[in-house]
Amino acid sequence: MSKSPEEEHPQKAFGWAARDTSGVLSPFKLSRRATGDEDVTFKVLYCGICHSDLHNIKNDWGISSYPILPGHEIVVGDKVGVGCMVGACHTCENCKDDLENYCPKMIQTYNATYYDGTMTYGGYSDIMVANERYIVRMPENMPLAAGASSLCAGITVYSPMKYYGLCNAGMHLGVVGLSGLGHVAVKFVKALGLKVTVISTSLTKKQEALEHLGADAFFISRDQAQMAAATATMDGIIDTVSTKHPLLPLINLIKPHGKIVCVGAPEQPPELPIFPLLMGRKMVAGSIIGGMKETQEMIDFAAKHNITADIEVIPMDYINTAMERLVKADVKYRFAIDIGNSLTPA
Amino acid sequence: MSKSPEEEHPQKAFGWAARDTSGVLSPFKLSRRATGDEDVTFKVLYCGICHSDLHNIKNDWGISSYPILPGHEIVVGDKVGVGCMVGACHTCENCKDDLENYCPKMIQTYNATYYDGTMTYGGYSDIMVANERYIVRMPENMPLAAGASSLCAGITVYSPMKYYGLCNAGMHLGVVGLSGLGHVAVKFVKALGLKVTVISTSLTKKQEALEHLGADAFFISRDQAQMAAATATMDGIIDTVSTKHPLLPLINLIKPHGKIVCVGAPEQPPELPIFPLLMGRKMVAGSIIGGMKETQEMIDFAAKHNITADIEVIPMDYINTAMERLVKADVKYRFAIDIGNSLTPA
Repeated sequence: MSKSPEEEHPQKAFGWAARDTSGVLSPFKLSRRATGDEDVTFKVLYCGICHSDLHNIKNDWGISSYPILPGHEIVVGDKVGVGCMVGACHTCENCKDDLENYCPKMIQTYNATYYDGTMTYGGYSDIMVANERYIVRMPENMPLAAGASSLCAGITVYSPMKYYGLCNAGMHLGVVGLSGLGHVAVKFVKALGLKVTVISTSLTKKQEALEHLGADAFFISRDQAQMAAATATMDGIIDTVSTKHPLLPLINLIKPHGKIVCVGAPEQPPELPIFPLLMGRKMVAGSIIGGMKETQEMIDFAAKHNITADIEVIPMDYINTAMERLVKADVKYRFAIDIGNSLTPA
Repeated sequence: MSKSPEEEHPQKAFGWAARDTSGVLSPFKLSRRATGDEDVTFKVLYCGICHSDLHNIKNDWGISSYPILPGHEIVVGDKVGVGCMVGACHTCENCKDDLENYCPKMIQTYNATYYDGTMTYGGYSDIMVANERYIVRMPENMPLAAGASSLCAGITVYSPMKYYGLCNAGMHLGVVGLSGLGHVAVKFVKALGLKVTVISTSLTKKQEALEHLGADAFFISRDQAQMAAATATMDGIIDTVSTKHPLLPLINLIKPHGKIVCVGAPEQPPELPIFPLLMGRKMVAGSIIGGMKETQEMIDFAAKHNITADIEVIPMDYINTAMERLVKADVKYRFAIDIGNSLTPA
């Protein structure tokens, strides 16, 4: 007979979890496994809130197992972090290529089944136990709260730029959506020496994009004249939007042989016009986070170039309000929970 | 005032053209330009019928200018050929990279406006005048009638295999649709040393695919058990189908980092499920024909490996019946018109 989350492991822990599709988070007692030979146990200091946390607690993707204790942008003691995954098979081709993120047996940081059959619980909690392979060293100059968000948002945008060759100085990239992912994407693109144009639905973000984030240009996606004037000017686009939106205007923005990489996951599939893909040998592709080796490379790059997410630090008991605000995109640009100072025992 | 097609140039010619969206072809008098310094004038011997000829004569893509005199798989005297294009700007980046096919000013062999402002007319005619840059040398051992079809069908499937890296021995490719393009794709994939699986809607093509074309496996796309058993087994897919069909089953067939390349152009856009693209870092891409340098490389490779299209040779006056049969996919696998022996003066 399986034991309760509170009893199944020897190390007592507590956090905040959702119990059902209301997605409401509340204090939750759990336990963490004993620290194994390759494990490290840490006190959690900060945890970023990713938009996927919101999808998970509400079961938007139909894959949630309750209780869910979210959090996969975790900064813990000794300046290390844990991101979106905590395990993989370590024998398949992807694992051998340092692409644990594409391993069919990859174990997510929460809402997944660990090797021992127990559920994984994320960083909205006091302590974490993680296999050392899944721990990222945070460089000395990386602020902890803001650095936490790079563990998901940063690698999500950095990895496809590298893989799809959209990282050469002088190239011109579009970033669609100025959200948690999008604003970090702009910072990485600029640090890599590329020109970046932000494509957004909201004119209110223009000044911010140009003056604060350093974007070179800014379009409103419904401004057909601006979009037409920019036809075939971009080498690639990082599309961070996770609601359904038309692809044709984006396909038209890229040059022949250009690449659109989707890193947001709309629940409803958009239409894909094939003819424009053929005529320009263009592609629409996907990417999700990155392997542990590349995640470390990304964090080191981010520290060197002072790239962090712009965050709003919140206490643990503000979490449900934060989730409501996240639904309305009412945050610049990412929340980070101050677990260390605000999580009190359940 | 512009002159008639019969009067605008000095060289008298004749062929078969469509006058309206009925797509019915009938004898047509035209003229060809004087042979310029870089031009060669040829007698047309054979011309393949491409499915796009059918779309063009019926204005399915809304881009047809009548009269249309189709044909872009043209074998002419002295064992040379003319394919899908007869001009480009020769100054842009694509042209400099031997990718005239992606030049924004690329001039198609028919239904396009030539440098001098006159309409281009294709190979369903007695003579052709072409700039030497757009002429392909047909190797000695390449049969003329069957070789003609390679000038469009061959390069259409060969170029994306090269560009997208789907050409390494030991890889496993899927070919969707066993038509004019698809059967040639199977031959190229095998000649390159890859494993090939044909995915078709029609079980009647199974024996043919396995025994005659040398495919390693054959699926019916609606056989969900077979499709499921083949999940994540393919490095890539060449999708030759030009009617709308779902992409998700194909995305599921490719391995992580796999590539689906569309070379057929459905009029209606299919849905693109984004989540599976993300999870496997997969892509859906397009490709259209190839540059002249690569077209020559393809023809030389085809000759070396005895790759030709399977053709049914027809006389010119059978053309309208052939088009009707093409609508029903009633041909194995491509028609070639014996222009040299059957076209009589209009």
